[in-house]
Amino acid sequence: MVTITDKTNINYSELLKRPVEYNPEIRVSVQEIIEKVRVQGDSALRLLTKKFDGIDIDRFEVDEQTIASSQNQVGENLKAAIEIAARNIERFHSAQKVSDVEVATMPGVSCKLVYRLLERVGLYVPGGTAPLISTVLMLGVPAKVAGCKELIVCTPPPVNPIILYACSLVGAKVFTVGGAQAIAAMAFGTETIPRVDKIFGPGNNYVTEAKMQVSAMGIPIDIPAGPSELLVIADESAIPQFVAADLLSQAEHGADSQVVLISNCNSIINETLDEINKQVKNLPRMNIALKALENSYAIKVETVERAIEISNTYAPEHLILAVASPEKYETMIKNAGSVFMGNYTPESAGDYASGTNHTLPTSGFARSWGGVNLLSFTKTITYQSITPEGIQELGNCIVELANAERLTAHANAVKLRMEKLSNQS
Amino acid sequence: MVTITDKTNINYSELLKRPVEYNPEIRVSVQEIIEKVRVQGDSALRLLTKKFDGIDIDRFEVDEQTIASSQNQVGENLKAAIEIAARNIERFHSAQKVSDVEVATMPGVSCKLVYRLLERVGLYVPGGTAPLISTVLMLGVPAKVAGCKELIVCTPPPVNPIILYACSLVGAKVFTVGGAQAIAAMAFGTETIPRVDKIFGPGNNYVTEAKMQVSAMGIPIDIPAGPSELLVIADESAIPQFVAADLLSQAEHGADSQVVLISNCNSIINETLDEINKQVKNLPRMNIALKALENSYAIKVETVERAIEISNTYAPEHLILAVASPEKYETMIKNAGSVFMGNYTPESAGDYASGTNHTLPTSGFARSWGGVNLLSFTKTITYQSITPEGIQELGNCIVELANAERLTAHANAVKLRMEKLSNQS
Repeated sequence: MVTITDKTNINYSELLKRPVEYNPEIRVSVQEIIEKVRVQGDSALRLLTKKFDGIDIDRFEVDEQTIASSQNQVGENLKAAIEIAARNIERFHSAQKVSDVEVATMPGVSCKLVYRLLERVGLYVPGGTAPLISTVLMLGVPAKVAGCKELIVCTPPPVNPIILYACSLVGAKVFTVGGAQAIAAMAFGTETIPRVDKIFGPGNNYVTEAKMQVSAMGIPIDIPAGPSELLVIADESAIPQFVAADLLSQAEHGADSQVVLISNCNSIINETLDEINKQVKNLPRMNIALKALENSYAIKVETVERAIEISNTYAPEHLILAVASPEKYETMIKNAGSVFMGNYTPESAGDYASGTNHTLPTSGFARSWGGVNLLSFTKTITYQSITPEGIQELGNCIVELANAERLTAHANAVKLRMEKLSNQS
Repeated sequence: MVTITDKTNINYSELLKRPVEYNPEIRVSVQEIIEKVRVQGDSALRLLTKKFDGIDIDRFEVDEQTIASSQNQVGENLKAAIEIAARNIERFHSAQKVSDVEVATMPGVSCKLVYRLLERVGLYVPGGTAPLISTVLMLGVPAKVAGCKELIVCTPPPVNPIILYACSLVGAKVFTVGGAQAIAAMAFGTETIPRVDKIFGPGNNYVTEAKMQVSAMGIPIDIPAGPSELLVIADESAIPQFVAADLLSQAEHGADSQVVLISNCNSIINETLDEINKQVKNLPRMNIALKALENSYAIKVETVERAIEISNTYAPEHLILAVASPEKYETMIKNAGSVFMGNYTPESAGDYASGTNHTLPTSGFARSWGGVNLLSFTKTITYQSITPEGIQELGNCIVELANAERLTAHANAVKLRMEKLSNQS
């Protein structure tokens, strides 16, 4: 980790730039993949799955029996853990329901905002050696709570039975296709994979690029994704052993992850760095963590307030407040995905089981984006209902504005109604 | 208008395809414009403004005095109309405030979802002969209600004083730059135009393409935009004169607009078509309307229910229910931007003054997107706070899941805390 001392003239948005390696080749090949799938559907998916996963797939959808039998391949302790996590996520997201809004903006003019669920959502679950159970829960449980009718999970073959088990809990259909081709399939639909209303989920550079490209075609996505990141603000009351463990839990995600420690206390910084050196040695993913630490910073500041100022500029995905009274600073936090309050709230709690969603904005997107929440699975429709009295009230206002914008037919539609009413009376 | 009779085997998503002319040249030149502005800032804006608007601009920001004096150039009737519209929009969007959510998901584990305003939003207001006052109100008023600190309006020179007046009412800063270059400026910031957190507003093909391209870079936009459209469902109680006027009010928007009439009643269809032929002759924008009517359809169905089924497939931006008891069908409507209930609720009411937002999803995007509403100007942050008791409750669950995902450091961060606590007790 690079250690520095705060100066007012430091440009932190420059200094703490995320380590991005932009690859134009990825953009082009993803464009090609999307076009192939859009035009050729399943046959393109078969070729691409053969090419990228080295597997011949006849039927992409995992049959119910295979899904059902998955429960025999999951240990009891893990099942219990999944149940607790799912229940906490369910509780927190259920509480996020909002009610429709109806207002009479003036006599005879009633307006209504209605929240409607998205009928069919697509959830991408990355493959690899470790089954990302938490991804299924963090997307599938809120989708169920929102009332989405169909959950479509795409995940590269071969699919781990633990993933199938988690999918069975949220009632998702599972299709064994991964990568950019899976995103394209959900965006446009194929003979076997239905087109979805919105696409959620993490993935590698190809998946992320594919999500951005289909979003530019109007298919909504959860949030733009990037390498994971954590910023910890620690005062003298912080416990270096914990802070080090939290920083490492983020650093082990990937070589391109970034962690930042900001403290008003030199000894906390030094002890944390020592602890990191101790703890990292015992990690199976030590090399990944060490690489991530190269892009990482420890910053000495004068006050916690200044630390939060810097954090707001950085807009971290995860922010830990390892300080004496974190609640004091809660409202000062302007830009962050999810905040972890106090010494006994590790980031991994939010990654798995506290109940908050772990699908969060990275790369500074927290300035504009929030993480996935219940409303991410809904859309709105507005209604208005105007009585004859109402249009007589409001009519002249509409005509005046329509004429100012030189839209005569807009004015006519109102005038005709007003005339008919005045003729009647 | 093309008139057809419903058959169950008609593929309406094919038949009612929106008239889109996709132009790859636009994509490329917009890419170039964005890159120029990102790298060269104001100097690029000056060159592009000279090129596209034929105007030399030294200072892009309109000074306060010019904005203040604009009020002397707006007629009293128009001022009164603007006031009424602004008040209705303000009332409906104020009612959309939602409260933060706090839940104890289990003993000692508290989770919180907080809504935060976007600090600085960018509003694009198209230029042209007619001043789009309604655009300023539909975006500026909700932004003020949400509490956004800074409203940045970009609009091509020369700026109509009526636009400046409307901007003064919502306290927006106005910059005289238009087109794709304005979108790029707001997305990345220049020496004089500040980077915004989200970009709103309609525009021509270049503006729309620019919005899609910056959204693919992670800068959020309101909704993907396309040509405007209206679908009217009319039963025997409809008034053909009104229906015709409503269809024309949409058709006059642009040659690429589309209108669809669906009715269970042949005489209503025929009388409406006659009325259209009468009314269109008196429109200044007759030729535009006639062109739009070429892409438009009148469909005879058996029942209103079937009409709504077709409408849900089409997912119209605007839907008028010109039927006896529209409320009967309210919950059947799954996909639509904004719905207009009954014979005395013309679409132009929602375009200007009923209070609902006129920034709505077109091109079938209403399947996935809602229109602009108060929450469009907010983001969410989550907080979690776990007590020592809480982490002892939840710890094993987290460790189990972290181990299943082979993220050892994630498990360590929890174990260390649990060990410390058990040593203490």
